[in-house]
Amino acid sequence: MDHAARLQLLVSRVEAGIDLLLPPASEPSARLHEAMRYSMQAGGKRLRPVLVLAASELFTGPDAADPLPAAVAVECVHTYSLVHDDLPCMDNDDLRRGRPTAHRAFDEATALLAGDALLTRSFAILAESYASRPALAASLVGELAGAAGSRRLIGGQMEDLLAERRAEATDEDLRYIHLNKTAALIEASLAMGALCSGAPQDAVGALREAGRELGLAFQVVDDILDATCDSATLGKTAGKDARAGKATYVTVHGLDRARRIARERSDLAVAALRRLPGDAAFLARLAEDLVARSR
Amino acid sequence: MDHAARLQLLVSRVEAGIDLLLPPASEPSARLHEAMRYSMQAGGKRLRPVLVLAASELFTGPDAADPLPAAVAVECVHTYSLVHDDLPCMDNDDLRRGRPTAHRAFDEATALLAGDALLTRSFAILAESYASRPALAASLVGELAGAAGSRRLIGGQMEDLLAERRAEATDEDLRYIHLNKTAALIEASLAMGALCSGAPQDAVGALREAGRELGLAFQVVDDILDATCDSATLGKTAGKDARAGKATYVTVHGLDRARRIARERSDLAVAALRRLPGDAAFLARLAEDLVARSR
Repeated sequence: MDHAARLQLLVSRVEAGIDLLLPPASEPSARLHEAMRYSMQAGGKRLRPVLVLAASELFTGPDAADPLPAAVAVECVHTYSLVHDDLPCMDNDDLRRGRPTAHRAFDEATALLAGDALLTRSFAILAESYASRPALAASLVGELAGAAGSRRLIGGQMEDLLAERRAEATDEDLRYIHLNKTAALIEASLAMGALCSGAPQDAVGALREAGRELGLAFQVVDDILDATCDSATLGKTAGKDARAGKATYVTVHGLDRARRIARERSDLAVAALRRLPGDAAFLARLAEDLVARSR
Repeated sequence: MDHAARLQLLVSRVEAGIDLLLPPASEPSARLHEAMRYSMQAGGKRLRPVLVLAASELFTGPDAADPLPAAVAVECVHTYSLVHDDLPCMDNDDLRRGRPTAHRAFDEATALLAGDALLTRSFAILAESYASRPALAASLVGELAGAAGSRRLIGGQMEDLLAERRAEATDEDLRYIHLNKTAALIEASLAMGALCSGAPQDAVGALREAGRELGLAFQVVDDILDATCDSATLGKTAGKDARAGKATYVTVHGLDRARRIARERSDLAVAALRRLPGDAAFLARLAEDLVARSR
């Protein structure tokens, strides 16, 4: 199977898992469940859940568990963070994945609660789906809650907001923001996939390292695309970093150097992946495509 | 030890646990951690974490685990729900526990993120604190995520908001709202305390039942106090149900009948508690005091 077909297969599995593991929109409270599904079913690259599945395929332990619920849990956390990030008190954005943002399609209160519900659901999915494997369930909850918490994802979002209000953000500020706002959940995705397959601790650690570099590369590319693409191509509002006067890798280092940094980070991620025991060619190709992507 | 002294002891344990289990305000992102602590350290009755501790004391299994982290996790979830509920797009409230609400003391974005971080932290606390007891950790995560999710707590909040926009809310609507917005987390508190002590399944079930009645009684009393007290007494804005034209037990049934319903629910809770094997006198007294409370 070629790379594109394999990727499409994993994305399809993720989307089937989302449909299965979210409450039906018909259940009370119907409006809340509709809003949860609206945000989760908007498409998108499904990068993080695909990383969970692909990382789990690197290992073939005798009692490997199905990584699909873990993949869906990660996507729930990612989507909640976008829904809250788009709210008027945060980025106040109207467009996401080519459709109106949740608070535009519903209203602010519904979007707030749908985000809360997706975050909560991610942990319920882990507890329910891995109930017969409680040690795995507890590890996955710890990994995901750590990555999504105030020291990582949310801390990165907080500093990202504060950076917009500051005159000057340093390279160090940017690194803190990207490491936490973006890389944390990508690290956790790879680690959670490996945990599902019973990978040894050192392999889980190597995947976290690869995830960190990949996450940093991914965010630099995001900065570049925000500065160089239009909204129709991105499916979200383009050029908003510049309008917000926000420091990014592009404003701090210039476009050429930002591109070089993205390439270097991606090379580091690929090198870390190649040190793994299993066949990491699929993951390495994913990493390369992320740097080359145009949206 | 008399009832008040024992209650004070449990509250002190909870507050020490909160201080221990939240990240220090000095850590980056400092503003986020300050806001988390601001909301968690505002005092309040600490009803839910006290219920966790008191329920765990009913049982004395050979390998009982410390219920304090579970108690703190429940309080994190309760506090996040208040922080988000007070936001301008929800109840738009300025006062909570006698102090400015989080978005007044900080700003909207910080309050939103601090709420998200408290919710996330609750699951991290369970995974970390019970790491050596993964089966217990997984049960606690499942119990808390279920109670806090879209089918219970958040579903109840969503319907509560929608009820304000409707001309008429029925007794059935009110019951759905109270059962989920309020009772769910009180049920889970009692169940989680019992789980920490290795209580048998039927006892956990009996505690959930008692929690449901107690939660319903508690919310009816909240409705009565909102209609009859001033803001200074309550430490939060009083009279807002009437101003919002919101259906409550008081508007639907009148004050006298609402008082009778609260008393009946509390009696049912006490009866359910008395059917338990251990000494439930402390919990029964807590239930009675909740109905008699004046704030």
